[in-house]
Amino acid sequence: MTEQQQAGNNLDPWYHHYSERAAGLRASEVRALFAVASRPEVVSLAGGMPFVSALPQDLVIDAMDRVMVEQGAVALQYGSGQGIPRFREQILEVMALEGISANADDVVVTTGSQHALELVSKLFLDPGDIVIAEGPSYVTAMVIFRSYQADVDHVPMDEHGMIPEALREHIARLRATGRTIKLLYTVPTFQNPAGVTLSWERRLEILEIARENGILVLEDNPYGLLYFDRKAPDAMRSVEEDGVIYLGTFSKTLAPGFRMGWALAPHAIREKLVLANEAAVLSPSSFSQLVISEYLSRADWKAQIDTFRGVYAERKQAMVSALGEYLPQLSWTNPAGGFYVWVTLPEPLDSKAMLPRAVKELVAYTPGTAFYADGNGRQNIRLSFCYPTPEQIRLGIRRLTTVIQGELDLLETFAGTGALDMVQGGAQFTSPPPNVS
Amino acid sequence: MTEQQQAGNNLDPWYHHYSERAAGLRASEVRALFAVASRPEVVSLAGGMPFVSALPQDLVIDAMDRVMVEQGAVALQYGSGQGIPRFREQILEVMALEGISANADDVVVTTGSQHALELVSKLFLDPGDIVIAEGPSYVTAMVIFRSYQADVDHVPMDEHGMIPEALREHIARLRATGRTIKLLYTVPTFQNPAGVTLSWERRLEILEIARENGILVLEDNPYGLLYFDRKAPDAMRSVEEDGVIYLGTFSKTLAPGFRMGWALAPHAIREKLVLANEAAVLSPSSFSQLVISEYLSRADWKAQIDTFRGVYAERKQAMVSALGEYLPQLSWTNPAGGFYVWVTLPEPLDSKAMLPRAVKELVAYTPGTAFYADGNGRQNIRLSFCYPTPEQIRLGIRRLTTVIQGELDLLETFAGTGALDMVQGGAQFTSPPPNVS
Repeated sequence: MTEQQQAGNNLDPWYHHYSERAAGLRASEVRALFAVASRPEVVSLAGGMPFVSALPQDLVIDAMDRVMVEQGAVALQYGSGQGIPRFREQILEVMALEGISANADDVVVTTGSQHALELVSKLFLDPGDIVIAEGPSYVTAMVIFRSYQADVDHVPMDEHGMIPEALREHIARLRATGRTIKLLYTVPTFQNPAGVTLSWERRLEILEIARENGILVLEDNPYGLLYFDRKAPDAMRSVEEDGVIYLGTFSKTLAPGFRMGWALAPHAIREKLVLANEAAVLSPSSFSQLVISEYLSRADWKAQIDTFRGVYAERKQAMVSALGEYLPQLSWTNPAGGFYVWVTLPEPLDSKAMLPRAVKELVAYTPGTAFYADGNGRQNIRLSFCYPTPEQIRLGIRRLTTVIQGELDLLETFAGTGALDMVQGGAQFTSPPPNVS
Repeated sequence: MTEQQQAGNNLDPWYHHYSERAAGLRASEVRALFAVASRPEVVSLAGGMPFVSALPQDLVIDAMDRVMVEQGAVALQYGSGQGIPRFREQILEVMALEGISANADDVVVTTGSQHALELVSKLFLDPGDIVIAEGPSYVTAMVIFRSYQADVDHVPMDEHGMIPEALREHIARLRATGRTIKLLYTVPTFQNPAGVTLSWERRLEILEIARENGILVLEDNPYGLLYFDRKAPDAMRSVEEDGVIYLGTFSKTLAPGFRMGWALAPHAIREKLVLANEAAVLSPSSFSQLVISEYLSRADWKAQIDTFRGVYAERKQAMVSALGEYLPQLSWTNPAGGFYVWVTLPEPLDSKAMLPRAVKELVAYTPGTAFYADGNGRQNIRLSFCYPTPEQIRLGIRRLTTVIQGELDLLETFAGTGALDMVQGGAQFTSPPPNVS
């Protein structure tokens, strides 16, 4: 080891050996929160864990036992890097519910849709490339993009999702500065974290903008089937085959413990995704594939999704009712499906600075800053209603009310004294993201 | 899309959008073989599939049912990115069999040890970096290294494994040309594909060379517990904590269908591996972890490994006996464990050119070229004895004898006519690898 290496980091003798991209792998804010929020006395409105207890375990046990008895040697063995053909056919049936017509040969089974995000990023992103995403966007997608040294450019949303005119402006501005835009990443339905849904008209318009500009769309749709009152608009992939990579998962409609998701990709891209999948894991778990395949064959899986929809609809209602009752001075989104409500705090509250006090009051949330690559989001918090019961949700919102009221009282006390800057931990970010300008 | 993009590849409109590293993701030779060898009439000595039928399915079914009844909600849920603590403790017991003493906090559970290879490569490899590996080496490790734009430098082996003096020379030569050596990748025990085992003395010497030169050792040990007559030397990690990342797997001692492996890493590296794992898959499968954990708790897993050892020892014996009987003019390694025999053909036979004729005779093998990054290996073939029965192995070797004898007859017929060059498909590679010189 050279002296220079030793000087770098006394705790890690390999400090100077990491790849350049490794610098982009930093712990997300959500990660630290998981540790805090796992204490039983804390009401966690932070995580995104589905309520798997609503899944009858007999259904899973029956599927497992049948797989082991009838296809044990296949379930225990390596499989193909693309996934089991019959399972890919069944995935077509799931996607058909959102208007997608496709060929099983274009489906790649992945270790959760998270791994599809990783593989797509590995295939497409060079250092300095741009990924356009909603602002705010899914935190662990942005962690991956950054881990391949790409920059995220956030396009703003309103209650109908990403704003097409803003997208046009961002593309023009990025191109004018010579940046290469590789992907348009979107969670169009019941977005994480904002809970909003891209309207059908905007889906068409955004696809058109992407087509005009030769930008590949990465449509991430974990929540689409978890609508409350009425079906969401069909997937963007339903009207555009060649310009969309579509990602789906069984984590929310069945259970995340199997780590089973998929990508549906244009044919040539699919071939490369399979190679990347083989390099990364040789093959996705045969066992998990067959168990889910058996479950889809035998169980009434659509009725099970209805059960989940009912559970989450009730919890969403509990959350927005409690917000209306206790915190009418705030504003929030009222999602038509999915897991999340996006709350805007009154100025000048700072969601990140407020979090330790919230945890002291035994309620956890995710500060909005986690969902921006550019420091925005201090005025926002993401509240999850997927896992806690309606009673816990009401309790959590009551505790949150105590916190917010305490903050507002504190701010009022110190108003005009100059102490506010410290309390808030810095100014709001309202200028364009640094990676754009 | 620009005209230039359209001109690139008519079949793939996204051809010019891939990352630079995507060019390194090419189908391996083993991949194409899997398709060919899967026809039932072909005796495949090509793949590396463990013989999972030797695992009593009751053991797995019992573990699964108990997990679902007692811990169903955990099994179906997301978990931590590092893996379940109790499972990591049990992994320590497995590693203790090869002399490793470690802390469960330094273990990261991965989606097969293949994914540990991927994560380590992502963390350490920049374009142009060098990974030193045995020549020949594990094909899908090299696919990963190449996918991160690193070059593999092969250090030769003899019957005692990698030759330390050659390693010193290669390091000196690479450094003299300004190359950065990031990893020393080795499968020290029952190597894939060569079947040889690094002696204890050489393990110490190679660790010393790595330490002197500040090179991190990546010890990949899927086969270590599958010895035939007597235990293999202890793992390299048993005597070197700070300079070794150790990779293990349940794919060979239990079943690959669960996709469960692990990395044991120096502490600071372990932290980064967890972040990379979280970005890639959020968390390894809770379900697979708990099933294996339950199996390790309740079943006599060491006796099960003994069963596997017995199966593979018998098959290895069938293979070397058949080689001695039918092909005494060839030379081959006689492994003390693992899955593979490495055969050297008489000059000037070409294993790659010969393969189609072998498949015509209904026997498949992996040509040696698959295991070199530099075009070497035409005179070698890898034969797997893990999956076929002893009878199939004898049949396969008899068919191979027909192929080799036919090739030799053909060569004799055309000797001196100048037609040989076409038959062989090119000269042997005996010069130093192009990426070294």
